[in-house]
Amino acid sequence: MNRINVAAAAEILETCGDAYILIHRAPDGDCIGAGLSLQAVLRQTGRKAKVLCADPIPERFHYLLPETEDEDFAPEIIIAVDVADEKLFGTLEETYGGKVQLCIDHHISNLLYAEQVLLEGEAAATCEILYKVYRAMGVTLTSQIAACLYTGIATDTGCFKFSNTTPETHIFTAELMREFPDIRYDLINRDMFTVKSRARLQAEMTMLRNMEYHLNGRCTIIWATLAVCRANGVDEKDMEGLTSLGLQPEGVEVGITVREREPGVYKVSLRAADYVDVSAICKQFGGGGHIRAAGCQMKGTQEEIRSRLLSAVEQAL
Amino acid sequence: MNRINVAAAAEILETCGDAYILIHRAPDGDCIGAGLSLQAVLRQTGRKAKVLCADPIPERFHYLLPETEDEDFAPEIIIAVDVADEKLFGTLEETYGGKVQLCIDHHISNLLYAEQVLLEGEAAATCEILYKVYRAMGVTLTSQIAACLYTGIATDTGCFKFSNTTPETHIFTAELMREFPDIRYDLINRDMFTVKSRARLQAEMTMLRNMEYHLNGRCTIIWATLAVCRANGVDEKDMEGLTSLGLQPEGVEVGITVREREPGVYKVSLRAADYVDVSAICKQFGGGGHIRAAGCQMKGTQEEIRSRLLSAVEQAL
Repeated sequence: MNRINVAAAAEILETCGDAYILIHRAPDGDCIGAGLSLQAVLRQTGRKAKVLCADPIPERFHYLLPETEDEDFAPEIIIAVDVADEKLFGTLEETYGGKVQLCIDHHISNLLYAEQVLLEGEAAATCEILYKVYRAMGVTLTSQIAACLYTGIATDTGCFKFSNTTPETHIFTAELMREFPDIRYDLINRDMFTVKSRARLQAEMTMLRNMEYHLNGRCTIIWATLAVCRANGVDEKDMEGLTSLGLQPEGVEVGITVREREPGVYKVSLRAADYVDVSAICKQFGGGGHIRAAGCQMKGTQEEIRSRLLSAVEQAL
Repeated sequence: MNRINVAAAAEILETCGDAYILIHRAPDGDCIGAGLSLQAVLRQTGRKAKVLCADPIPERFHYLLPETEDEDFAPEIIIAVDVADEKLFGTLEETYGGKVQLCIDHHISNLLYAEQVLLEGEAAATCEILYKVYRAMGVTLTSQIAACLYTGIATDTGCFKFSNTTPETHIFTAELMREFPDIRYDLINRDMFTVKSRARLQAEMTMLRNMEYHLNGRCTIIWATLAVCRANGVDEKDMEGLTSLGLQPEGVEVGITVREREPGVYKVSLRAADYVDVSAICKQFGGGGHIRAAGCQMKGTQEEIRSRLLSAVEQAL
């Protein structure tokens, strides 16, 4: 493994051949924006490129998809963007584990599994790093690339709300907006942060109604069990982003959202409001992420999971 | 009335005497940030200054208040910031109507009631205009002034989410963040956009449950009547910002929130998602505001108000 800088990554991308670009399972705006923008950049100069993901790209990101895809090809380079751990390739790990030649990521928890790694933990989004890489490459941005980068930056910062937002985040965004004044950023934001299906609104209300308050109101737990989802007609795809609900009530420092992926297997998301390092908590359970937003997978009964999480959070508070 | 530019406004503020600074009733982050920052700027150079508002400053903005206030004084200049219409002085209109010497505002609907008017309709917030004025004055910003300006810009753009956000909005924000890296912008955002009292969460759930869908799901109405508020233990101060709830469901173009101020007197807020000019709709009812966010006051029964609003919205759709 070799840690590289923006210029070195730019050089690799300028000279590499046809590429497969891996993004993480349960794809979010940042890995989708990163993957699709990189695909577009490589294709601009005649390389074939394809984005691979274990899960389908959610419909609300389809405005970022290219008009055409390259026909089947054998890759000359395997690249991963925004993927901290090969486990997050999901079903693609078996095929591509150990084979990633270049990884570009902003998760401090990155396991450095790739041959060449451009890791900037202080970047708000992988798309922010890629913006710098594309500038170093002298790429001519297109409206599609700009929309990809904006979407990644906006979604990973909660629309410039979270502590990962830096002056650079705002500067890059201003530059994108200046170069592409016709993109309807407000509509992207509306689709990303405001619009909800009626089913999703229903789900939120259910979650809020049943939200548990623990540790003197400083920790909340929201249980998105299969039973709750079924009872409210909530689809898995309507659950994305629910992780922020638990931080809404006054006085809460840690908000936990527990989604049941299959019976007894839970995807746990932790969010901290101010000072708790939830990445460290998730690490105890084999997960990771950012200091104020992290996740892990847990197995067991609701009671077991609740008590293990609460004792870890209590220690951290 | 005389329209002036940033340089001229800066000159007036450099040379004026002790000032009363009027902000609008039901004060929001932008008028509070504008008023308190201007107070601080004037006091830096030995002028006395006081912010006057018909309503109390909500507690969640108290972090912006100065440590001390000037003792009683007679003003040499009356300034209004972020106030489009003297009616919005509320109970202070009687005393200060017709007496405003300088108005700084970003509402295109501004009635130009002041002697000197600095009006920039394309600015996302009055605080954005003031940032330029302070730069023109050569003011040394303080952390309190920066927090005021950030709060005004962030709240009026929905944290850089709305269509009023421009490249300049992001640039100014980056400059503020660079100059004052120690301000916890993320905590300001959390307090402004995320944290809710349990009563407020309760209120939201009630409003969402009872939200009316009209015009084929393209228009929603939320009724915050005195009865609903009483039944849910919701205080007037917990209702601020509820206006955005109505745009959440997929497919909605116009979200209407109707708050009953006193029996039979309603404060109506309209928000548009994409293309409807709600400022024009509100003008029909004696109100005004921005193109995608406007308001008016109406009297009558719920049925009357609903039918008048819906026929105006139907025409606009």
